[in-house]
Amino acid sequence: MAIAKGVKDALSSSSMIRKMFEEGNLLRKRYGADKVFDFSLGNPDIEPPPAFHQVFLRFAQDDAAGRSKGVHGYMSNPGFPAVREALAKKASREQGVMLEGSHIILAVGAAGGLNVVFKTILNSGDEVLTSRPYFMEYKGYTANHGGVLREVDSLPDFNLDLDGIRNRLNEKTAAVLINSPHNPTGRVYPAATLHALAEILEAHGKKTGRWPFLVADEPYREIVYIPGGTPPLLSVYRNSISVTSYSKSLSLPGERIGYIAVNPGIQDEEDLLNGLIYATRILGYINAPALMQRIVAELTEESVDVRVYARRRDAFKEVLDKAGIPYAEPQGAFYLFCQVPPKKGGSNTVGDDGAFVDHLKQHLILGVPGSGFGKPGWVRFAYCVDETVIRTAGEAFKKAMETWA
Amino acid sequence: MAIAKGVKDALSSSSMIRKMFEEGNLLRKRYGADKVFDFSLGNPDIEPPPAFHQVFLRFAQDDAAGRSKGVHGYMSNPGFPAVREALAKKASREQGVMLEGSHIILAVGAAGGLNVVFKTILNSGDEVLTSRPYFMEYKGYTANHGGVLREVDSLPDFNLDLDGIRNRLNEKTAAVLINSPHNPTGRVYPAATLHALAEILEAHGKKTGRWPFLVADEPYREIVYIPGGTPPLLSVYRNSISVTSYSKSLSLPGERIGYIAVNPGIQDEEDLLNGLIYATRILGYINAPALMQRIVAELTEESVDVRVYARRRDAFKEVLDKAGIPYAEPQGAFYLFCQVPPKKGGSNTVGDDGAFVDHLKQHLILGVPGSGFGKPGWVRFAYCVDETVIRTAGEAFKKAMETWA
Repeated sequence: MAIAKGVKDALSSSSMIRKMFEEGNLLRKRYGADKVFDFSLGNPDIEPPPAFHQVFLRFAQDDAAGRSKGVHGYMSNPGFPAVREALAKKASREQGVMLEGSHIILAVGAAGGLNVVFKTILNSGDEVLTSRPYFMEYKGYTANHGGVLREVDSLPDFNLDLDGIRNRLNEKTAAVLINSPHNPTGRVYPAATLHALAEILEAHGKKTGRWPFLVADEPYREIVYIPGGTPPLLSVYRNSISVTSYSKSLSLPGERIGYIAVNPGIQDEEDLLNGLIYATRILGYINAPALMQRIVAELTEESVDVRVYARRRDAFKEVLDKAGIPYAEPQGAFYLFCQVPPKKGGSNTVGDDGAFVDHLKQHLILGVPGSGFGKPGWVRFAYCVDETVIRTAGEAFKKAMETWA
Repeated sequence: MAIAKGVKDALSSSSMIRKMFEEGNLLRKRYGADKVFDFSLGNPDIEPPPAFHQVFLRFAQDDAAGRSKGVHGYMSNPGFPAVREALAKKASREQGVMLEGSHIILAVGAAGGLNVVFKTILNSGDEVLTSRPYFMEYKGYTANHGGVLREVDSLPDFNLDLDGIRNRLNEKTAAVLINSPHNPTGRVYPAATLHALAEILEAHGKKTGRWPFLVADEPYREIVYIPGGTPPLLSVYRNSISVTSYSKSLSLPGERIGYIAVNPGIQDEEDLLNGLIYATRILGYINAPALMQRIVAELTEESVDVRVYARRRDAFKEVLDKAGIPYAEPQGAFYLFCQVPPKKGGSNTVGDDGAFVDHLKQHLILGVPGSGFGKPGWVRFAYCVDETVIRTAGEAFKKAMETWA
């Protein structure tokens, strides 16, 4: 075998998702793309806001006129100083602490940023604690750098189980990884929960001498529907790091632009910042794409219109209500996490999410089994598709439920 | 200690280079940027070719006019299918084999591509063999994925020492990593050398059952001065992979765009290609930046004007000749690798590159010690600076040599 064992194993286990993706393509070919209700992908379909196009065009015109020199070259690994300053201001507003440019490390999307963080903080065998369900790639991001992902079940309402987390902390716990607004549940962790979590981590640090980092994956921070928005994170706990991107808030996932915001006064601050810069370099990112750095620095007040997602969410809820499929109320992000409904005349045991997804597929509805997030018995639907697709799917959902027996 | 031990160690050992960089900034502040002859950085200063600006502007205009939809979104991890097709054609021309789009994986620069390759092929403890001197980051790229870099000294003319390589091959050798045109020596490996290397790897495979991959880091492929250019690589050995970028050929290093070209018919082809795609995803790159993918696909016939680098090389050679500093004749890339000249009345032992670099610094000339490439006694000067800077430095070089005693 010419490829690494870990990669070979991963290929086998991820083949289910690949198969699903291929089946979706097959369905589109057979029945026509407009006949298939594809809610499987979290790929924002809303175009970037007009301000993005304007800045993009201005930079292209400057380039063509020879007014900008060296802008596509290397800069310092953590990013252009002016961009770091601009993002520090934005992060300071959101996070309730005063960051300087030095606390911002530009990243190749949030996925790149998380890898940089884990490379920097994980020793071999270190543990990262996360709340289940969770985005399954976290397992790989941790394992890439010698770490092990440990899972704690969330509460029934998908809020953090603080007692569960407290019980799983040990001297190997390097970090607690949270994601809010949450994929796949749409949960936003309340400020009180974050404060209680911080107290637990603080107490654990005092007892053991090791203060776990609180790492927040926050690409959905601005896609939020509840009053007050997503609560600040950095202000609640000294040892905290926020990782985010413009993939959702500006609909730029393919451009790979995001950043790491480090709490000022974090433990071993200088080493940690230098470590993040070193990891950015040595993992081969070198720096976040130069052009997108410059563009997002001018768009710190911009975001896609969240009301569009809110309308889709409402439309989808109506569809699910009519079909009789229970779901978790989404407070942010663009997913509906649904419980597999009991079969007609069936028992009350946890529904088989694989079977339900297969059944929906026969009605040309595509979703992702909760098992793909460590949560069997549930199914995720992404509503980054046109509202009319959601409304049109209503009939298919109803029919699917009639034959779910 | 809150950061990983490996990262902490790396920070200490790389502090010399950081210190040098900071000292350069200090010199610029004290004496004025125009007074400092900075040949330390391999950051191309030539602007991207006009065709780049034109395509960039056209895409920005299309965006602003609403003519392009979804172009900043996710695509398949290995890149847009049309981009992969276009690059396959280009790579086929250069490499002397017929590649299809499926053999191209878009990468976040060559550094990103190398990390993806090593993640895919290295098991813990596997060895990667490279020729010394070499770009020191290779050590980290290998170690990131559990591998160990093994070094073989090059021949006195910096060509590969084939006997040395043959002797270091063993059952743990996963890959031989070459870089041509070469940083820091400017060497281009001749076709005959590559064929002889292929025979050695083939023979080793037949004997042991493990055929090492031949991985070529080729970002300088198009920056070449010798007749016939850089010889093709993929055509010489079945198990070969080329990793390249547009950092030098289009002067886009900050935009992080490159690709991996896999030899059709490579061992375990399907697993390997799927592994590279998986590694692209799980290392957090997800995909190469979308906009730059689309741009470079339209520029497969373009490159910066290599004659500009050739003129600088000639100017720099004249400066060194006059100062009496011996160097390796560069056949490609944009570096002059110079031997530390013997001190006046000094012995014939290997010169102290650190001391020589310090001495040059007093004359406001910045270079990188060969020790930074595993080759003490040598110094690297990068000539990606204006020709007038090189010519003006002549006087400083002469004065520095007069006092090198």
